[in-house]
Amino acid sequence: MTLMTALPMADATGPCSGTAFRAFMSHWPTGVSVVTTTDGEQPAGCTANAVMSVSLEPALLVVALGTASRTLAAVRDSGRFALNFLTGDQQHLCRRFATASNADRFQQTPYHWRHGVPVLDEVGAATVCRVHDLTECGDHVLVVGAPFWQGAGEQANPLVFYQKAYHDLTRR
Amino acid sequence: MTLMTALPMADATGPCSGTAFRAFMSHWPTGVSVVTTTDGEQPAGCTANAVMSVSLEPALLVVALGTASRTLAAVRDSGRFALNFLTGDQQHLCRRFATASNADRFQQTPYHWRHGVPVLDEVGAATVCRVHDLTECGDHVLVVGAPFWQGAGEQANPLVFYQKAYHDLTRR
Repeated sequence: MTLMTALPMADATGPCSGTAFRAFMSHWPTGVSVVTTTDGEQPAGCTANAVMSVSLEPALLVVALGTASRTLAAVRDSGRFALNFLTGDQQHLCRRFATASNADRFQQTPYHWRHGVPVLDEVGAATVCRVHDLTECGDHVLVVGAPFWQGAGEQANPLVFYQKAYHDLTRR
Repeated sequence: MTLMTALPMADATGPCSGTAFRAFMSHWPTGVSVVTTTDGEQPAGCTANAVMSVSLEPALLVVALGTASRTLAAVRDSGRFALNFLTGDQQHLCRRFATASNADRFQQTPYHWRHGVPVLDEVGAATVCRVHDLTECGDHVLVVGAPFWQGAGEQANPLVFYQKAYHDLTRR
């Protein structure tokens, strides 16, 4: 590779368009998770790939949820949520928790309640968090979580999203 | 995979230890980036894999930097930074920007100044951002950036970190 060629980009003095930014961020590989919580007594949740570790002491992570997200409203109300990390063979869960109706999301998906939150069965790893902080950030809210339960299955190939497509990992 | 087996975990009512949290988050695959900025007239920078897209309208991303990080201090002062996404053959840059002295980091690394920030040559993709917000979050600071320049090389295999090891991607 030589010097960079420009992607569609904004003027140097102005903000970047949403379309150009989305194209740019597709160069950053991410895992795929399902955020789950409780809406009253019903399970609620959605797919999210804007997830990252933030702090070790204290242990804190962050997930970004759209300001209009029903899952965000339920996370605000309940004060807790789980992050479920999907494996390579769980593309169907990624799609289901992005597009299906809320009832259908859970009706077809095995889960167990843990500490008041529905944690999906058979995912690569999952953690239950207390909401530590909520910060508005453009059209999303940064939900900072303090984990207090976590579990993982056998070593699994995680689902990875990159350049708008699913990928598998191979150890170098 | 069947039901999850527990990783080392904290008591359900207390916070998770840093060690247990680090082990858990190793189940989340990430890209690897180098955050670059200017410290006076000198380039400064460090490796970071806590990076994510947050908002499309306006375009905003976030990177977490340790509170004691010299790069964070320089980002605060300069008000701008670049994110450089590393490719699979750039493990040496990941190590260099994590462990070498600040002078050595750039002396051995080709870069060009763009909008007052050193952008590394030959990375997979890079963006220059204005600092939009800074939020303390445990032992790190969430640096929210508003991108105003971005570029990318030819389609490249990104460097991926997962389970404490480098990985390659294969499209499913």
